[in-house]
Amino acid sequence: MATTVDRDTAKTSLTFADRYERVRQLSSTLCETLEPEDCCIQSMADVSPTRWHLAHTTWFFETFVLSKVDGFRTLKDNFSYLFNSYYNAVGAQFPRARRGLLSRPTVGEVRAYRDAVDERMRRLLTGDRFFADEDLQTIVELGLNHEQQHQELMLTDIKHVFSCNPLWPVYRQGSTAGSGVSSIGNGEGWRRFDEGIYWIGHSGNNFAYDNESPRHRVFLDAFQLAERLVTCGEYLEFMADGGYRRPELWLSEGWSNVCEHHWQAPLYWHLVDEEWREFTLAGLVRLDQQRPLCHVNYFEADAYARWRGARIPTEAEWEVASAQVPVSGNFVDLLLEQKRVLHPSVAPAARPQLAQMFGDVWEWTTSSYAPYSGYQPAEGALGEYNGKFMCNQYVLRGGSCATPSDHIRRTYRNFFPASARWQFSGIRLAR
Amino acid sequence: MATTVDRDTAKTSLTFADRYERVRQLSSTLCETLEPEDCCIQSMADVSPTRWHLAHTTWFFETFVLSKVDGFRTLKDNFSYLFNSYYNAVGAQFPRARRGLLSRPTVGEVRAYRDAVDERMRRLLTGDRFFADEDLQTIVELGLNHEQQHQELMLTDIKHVFSCNPLWPVYRQGSTAGSGVSSIGNGEGWRRFDEGIYWIGHSGNNFAYDNESPRHRVFLDAFQLAERLVTCGEYLEFMADGGYRRPELWLSEGWSNVCEHHWQAPLYWHLVDEEWREFTLAGLVRLDQQRPLCHVNYFEADAYARWRGARIPTEAEWEVASAQVPVSGNFVDLLLEQKRVLHPSVAPAARPQLAQMFGDVWEWTTSSYAPYSGYQPAEGALGEYNGKFMCNQYVLRGGSCATPSDHIRRTYRNFFPASARWQFSGIRLAR
Amino acid sequence: MATTVDRDTAKTSLTFADRYERVRQLSSTLCETLEPEDCCIQSMADVSPTRWHLAHTTWFFETFVLSKVDGFRTLKDNFSYLFNSYYNAVGAQFPRARRGLLSRPTVGEVRAYRDAVDERMRRLLTGDRFFADEDLQTIVELGLNHEQQHQELMLTDIKHVFSCNPLWPVYRQGSTAGSGVSSIGNGEGWRRFDEGIYWIGHSGNNFAYDNESPRHRVFLDAFQLAERLVTCGEYLEFMADGGYRRPELWLSEGWSNVCEHHWQAPLYWHLVDEEWREFTLAGLVRLDQQRPLCHVNYFEADAYARWRGARIPTEAEWEVASAQVPVSGNFVDLLLEQKRVLHPSVAPAARPQLAQMFGDVWEWTTSSYAPYSGYQPAEGALGEYNGKFMCNQYVLRGGSCATPSDHIRRTYRNFFPASARWQFSGIRLAR
Amino acid sequence: MATTVDRDTAKTSLTFADRYERVRQLSSTLCETLEPEDCCIQSMADVSPTRWHLAHTTWFFETFVLSKVDGFRTLKDNFSYLFNSYYNAVGAQFPRARRGLLSRPTVGEVRAYRDAVDERMRRLLTGDRFFADEDLQTIVELGLNHEQQHQELMLTDIKHVFSCNPLWPVYRQGSTAGSGVSSIGNGEGWRRFDEGIYWIGHSGNNFAYDNESPRHRVFLDAFQLAERLVTCGEYLEFMADGGYRRPELWLSEGWSNVCEHHWQAPLYWHLVDEEWREFTLAGLVRLDQQRPLCHVNYFEADAYARWRGARIPTEAEWEVASAQVPVSGNFVDLLLEQKRVLHPSVAPAARPQLAQMFGDVWEWTTSSYAPYSGYQPAEGALGEYNGKFMCNQYVLRGGSCATPSDHIRRTYRNFFPASARWQFSGIRLAR
Repeated sequence: MATTVDRDTAKTSLTFADRYERVRQLSSTLCETLEPEDCCIQSMADVSPTRWHLAHTTWFFETFVLSKVDGFRTLKDNFSYLFNSYYNAVGAQFPRARRGLLSRPTVGEVRAYRDAVDERMRRLLTGDRFFADEDLQTIVELGLNHEQQHQELMLTDIKHVFSCNPLWPVYRQGSTAGSGVSSIGNGEGWRRFDEGIYWIGHSGNNFAYDNESPRHRVFLDAFQLAERLVTCGEYLEFMADGGYRRPELWLSEGWSNVCEHHWQAPLYWHLVDEEWREFTLAGLVRLDQQRPLCHVNYFEADAYARWRGARIPTEAEWEVASAQVPVSGNFVDLLLEQKRVLHPSVAPAARPQLAQMFGDVWEWTTSSYAPYSGYQPAEGALGEYNGKFMCNQYVLRGGSCATPSDHIRRTYRNFFPASARWQFSGIRLAR
Repeated sequence: MATTVDRDTAKTSLTFADRYERVRQLSSTLCETLEPEDCCIQSMADVSPTRWHLAHTTWFFETFVLSKVDGFRTLKDNFSYLFNSYYNAVGAQFPRARRGLLSRPTVGEVRAYRDAVDERMRRLLTGDRFFADEDLQTIVELGLNHEQQHQELMLTDIKHVFSCNPLWPVYRQGSTAGSGVSSIGNGEGWRRFDEGIYWIGHSGNNFAYDNESPRHRVFLDAFQLAERLVTCGEYLEFMADGGYRRPELWLSEGWSNVCEHHWQAPLYWHLVDEEWREFTLAGLVRLDQQRPLCHVNYFEADAYARWRGARIPTEAEWEVASAQVPVSGNFVDLLLEQKRVLHPSVAPAARPQLAQMFGDVWEWTTSSYAPYSGYQPAEGALGEYNGKFMCNQYVLRGGSCATPSDHIRRTYRNFFPASARWQFSGIRLAR
Repeated sequence: MATTVDRDTAKTSLTFADRYERVRQLSSTLCETLEPEDCCIQSMADVSPTRWHLAHTTWFFETFVLSKVDGFRTLKDNFSYLFNSYYNAVGAQFPRARRGLLSRPTVGEVRAYRDAVDERMRRLLTGDRFFADEDLQTIVELGLNHEQQHQELMLTDIKHVFSCNPLWPVYRQGSTAGSGVSSIGNGEGWRRFDEGIYWIGHSGNNFAYDNESPRHRVFLDAFQLAERLVTCGEYLEFMADGGYRRPELWLSEGWSNVCEHHWQAPLYWHLVDEEWREFTLAGLVRLDQQRPLCHVNYFEADAYARWRGARIPTEAEWEVASAQVPVSGNFVDLLLEQKRVLHPSVAPAARPQLAQMFGDVWEWTTSSYAPYSGYQPAEGALGEYNGKFMCNQYVLRGGSCATPSDHIRRTYRNFFPASARWQFSGIRLAR
Repeated sequence: MATTVDRDTAKTSLTFADRYERVRQLSSTLCETLEPEDCCIQSMADVSPTRWHLAHTTWFFETFVLSKVDGFRTLKDNFSYLFNSYYNAVGAQFPRARRGLLSRPTVGEVRAYRDAVDERMRRLLTGDRFFADEDLQTIVELGLNHEQQHQELMLTDIKHVFSCNPLWPVYRQGSTAGSGVSSIGNGEGWRRFDEGIYWIGHSGNNFAYDNESPRHRVFLDAFQLAERLVTCGEYLEFMADGGYRRPELWLSEGWSNVCEHHWQAPLYWHLVDEEWREFTLAGLVRLDQQRPLCHVNYFEADAYARWRGARIPTEAEWEVASAQVPVSGNFVDLLLEQKRVLHPSVAPAARPQLAQMFGDVWEWTTSSYAPYSGYQPAEGALGEYNGKFMCNQYVLRGGSCATPSDHIRRTYRNFFPASARWQFSGIRLAR
């Protein structure tokens, strides 16, 4: 894979101090178009207010790094209660579903909190003690990755917040440049992989979450993977063929959801004057049929695949296939640099290899989120980071247009409940 | 009643234009201590964000006054959808329970909306056409009273919002000056009223809501009314005597609520280090046992009265008794002027007449909110103002420390569901 | 009122022992068409299984009579827990909403329980001790009235249970004889009553519930009362005129209910092949437009009256008007004797006086269920019988086709929440 | 595996007609201790009334066999609506959660329905046409297995129904004979299995559900399996060590459930006078610490395993290990024959091989219920039998004391949501 940029190498060639600045700066950049009012809203229990993300990621460095070093607590005691997400080992948490009831601390006060922690962190990261303390480096690395995860959530959450407002607020304009797409219907649309024992999972010294380990063997039957993502136009065909009205296409729980919630289209699609529009981070726009479908949940992905006579891949299949392509694509930092819209992009017309494996949309897999054979959670409070969520969630792979480019890996396992629609989640077919 | 200030006379001695300025200004004053973040939060379905109150009261003038005059619409079309509260005749409404999901228009944009409407209203109110149009005057009068109602709600709503925040934000500091109180236990604590036919309800040309009319006769048996409000200290005795643990003291629905919600004290009371504290608009303070009890609901008022071997009055009894006292007391505008805390005040030690009938706290009555004999709702959309709520609500009388002083009348009928606790609502006993 | 049968006199001419037999026998008669399976079902929280009614009415005699006499407990201890409805003073209660989860004791066991209590009661009622003990007589009288109330509930509850079954079970066939009806539209349809002070409420030695006392004065403005009940045909006109689609006709809470529950017709009406049918105790039958409307709630009654330009009466108006008519009509025992269908009957064509005031359907009044001036609940546990429900309920008057004929009085106050539809409740207009 | 009884061979040595009689008879036997009232109750949405099970299993033969043969419909049309469980392809279904609202058809009518279908089925199964029609044989085979599944549910459902009744009804007495148990703590308690590629899943001509196919390869790392089930006594140690109070032992969703539902012990355990009792099909009995734990859900199984420093096995591990033991154990038909209590039995003291792999309790695995590689659902309506439930459920293996002995297989995949506790589900550890 000579063409693959080794992002881990790129990452480690930067000092921790540099990377800290870059990551923290991106969080600020993502907020620069927001008003204080925007930063308070929790539009559903899954969503957190922007201000909470800004404070929580800061609380993480304060709690797991600064306070470990010298007992330092930057600010008020009850911040720990307010901004602890789910770490029972650290203490009680303000109820998640009530985060939207808090107007204080204000955005300004949270910024001050960030500044205070940043100042201490800068001193720490450039000091001798830090260079000598590998455990501390591991936690800072985790803290940076943690903040990057929340950067994606800041975007998906503010998109959901804005989507509840009939004024259709625009988060950020962007250019919509993109290339054409050929049909997926012909034989060339699939890549084949042989049966065999494969190794999957993370190994080596570069950073990965504990849920990606240990590297272990799986047996795979031969399979095929679609060379690009499902498009909005293709999904419209499914809808036109009664996709949301035919129970035989759906998992039982999915069909119950369709009936109960009256789903008739992906989240954020609106039929206006008999024309489909899509609410995006650039406001309500005409649906682009060439672009990858996004904001579908596991049930919709599964039903679409069944309708197409295909299926969605397992996470092992996806990871094995991903070895053939570089870890590059449309990620949030690149899109911002290029002033492009924060939305999945049209696939390239020429596809010498699997396209769109990284960036654009998270790809649902049929794999329930479970511990790998031999999995051991991290010690202490940070062991709560991943393992305790391994139930009733499904794995998604590859990152999205809201993921920072140096955050993703081939072995990266994202996970959401089967009914979740507010992430940039889409479909790649397998068979 | 020589000492009674005739507030209606005072009111009408001002021009409409002057009164418009004063009322609108008070809304601004009430927001001056708030951050933009504070103005977005909806802490329960009954609460509206401050920003919504500011916009809705403005929408009222735009919709029922300006647009009637010349079809004028100040701002965006969908403001009408967003800021219509419940007037079906005017059009669809953004769902009440979702008002807290809106971050736009921002506080600044709402202020601009207010300014634009104010400018048009000023021109109108000083023009010849307005002086000649009595219907228009009636609607402006209603609009001013409507905004005053929302001023009270702005205070009770922001108090509820802040009460959800473990940081206990302070809305506004104030002095806590007040006089002592004598015991209610002795015979002098009650005033007697004879049986007979009495007239109640509004008549005359001064403004009143349609629900206060027509003036009509009721027959009352002889009754007694307590000369002052129930205090926090007295309520503590009820609590100490098992008040919240004895079903025989409660209405059946009240007891269900006690069990389901685990009520053990009035809303906003907190036991901190074995000492009772009360969350107020001035933050969390030590409970003052001399002050009138507030933030109890109908069930608590009824249970307390039963425990005391008394009852709460009917609205007719209250109105008949109120004829003996001037319409004066601790109201929000006076408290602000005097830089006093926005909270009910201790009763005067000397009480030549019924004390605390007006201001301090709304007094629960045992009267279900129902149409008076001969009631006719107003014509058109404004007929939805009152009549359609005449079911499963109870009448409260006398205004509170959050009511503007020129808003209240002896015939004024406020109403809330029996379970509502977030208003400044308290108890006066009858027997 | 020479034609008025004095039912109280008739009642007291029977011995207690005779009346006990008759009342208990009617409960058995009402169950004779039911299978054991029918007697277990609780189709909503408001409904109790037939078996529970049979056991609870027996528990009442055991608890408040037999156990008071000599500590006698007929059967198992936990029956008291299972069959106590809401008397906190007597002990804890099996949760009301879970009554449908019990299959034991079986119907047969409950019958044996009834027999055992009956045997003891017979001995008591014919003994000297009972004749000498007026307090005991009062409680037995209450127990008999209590069982009669449950006889009505047995019918309304089993009707609701059967209505959930698409097989439309028939509870009991009956003849549908009835006379024609003339139009209510002309002036003769109303009776006039003068303004004045009236006495309402119960006095004297005959039995009445505590909520009917004391007799007291009310002032009434002049009013008119419709001479008969609203018919199904008239209500169809309301529906045809958009009754369920026009918010301006509804109380706000009623309109919310219409929208949330998609009400489009009274409970038990079904549109089958474009023809309205009504589920009755005799199964699903074609809607008879001449018969009185029933199974509407307070909101529907209020909306219909508003649409007709009228209103529903207050309970005082109803009681004052009822003095002019005998306490007679279509009651359950008479209908059973005559083998007629257990359903409201068509009004007589000739109406020399107010028709249908008693029997047929309970008539909604606009009066919130509240204590009368001077009301005192009974002492002890039986004080829980009525008073604690005086909140958020509305009074209905006159009895229905499911009420035993010697149970009703002019002063009788029935009460249900405004949203309740499963009782035989209908509309008489006032203005 | 010379000692393994080949149950499939035993099964096929019987004629279809014989097996039909035996299976249908067992359903009747399971009801012989029930009263009609018992057969109506639905104590939660997951539970179906006994009567419904009896009718639904009959509806299955009528719908998928008899009506296919000659359009024959035994009984009323709406039975299909009432007793269709979830086959959308067959038509609409009466809502599952409302099955407890039906009192008709009565138990007697359902028995008559069964008799009528049985008579037709007998004729069919002994006729030439049936012997010639392999498709029909396949469906009858499925129908028999289907009824056996419902036999288990009849038991677990009636147990739940009875558990809601404070009278603690006894379903069926039985002897409690059982042997002692040695400690699991020593090294001999585990069996080791080597890493490698294994085949799992069903192949061959004998009956299996579609979800057990196709037979396919998996790679397993080396693992160990506990030689017997976790006992009640061992679980008491977990509880004594704060098992239900320590969030670090639980999956996040499990901990939320513990907090919300206040779980403190397995379902059906009750602390009475400081002694643990267990509600069983033989009533409320003293907890036997030697017996296998049952009625725990996935979260409890997972938490217990974590506390023990172990884990629960994957379904592939379980299936591979099961190849070493015969398919025999404590099943419902054997327990009935031996007049033993319908409850899991104590493990034998001497364990030359893995004990209790079949019967006693279903064993939770960590495997999410998902399609096997290459899975194809059956054609037509019967394709809805399994595949559409492959989401958010976990696989259990081995059958229980409520499973018929000729129903289970090594490849058999049962599945329930992670929160389900009302099945006979227990724990075998792995590591």
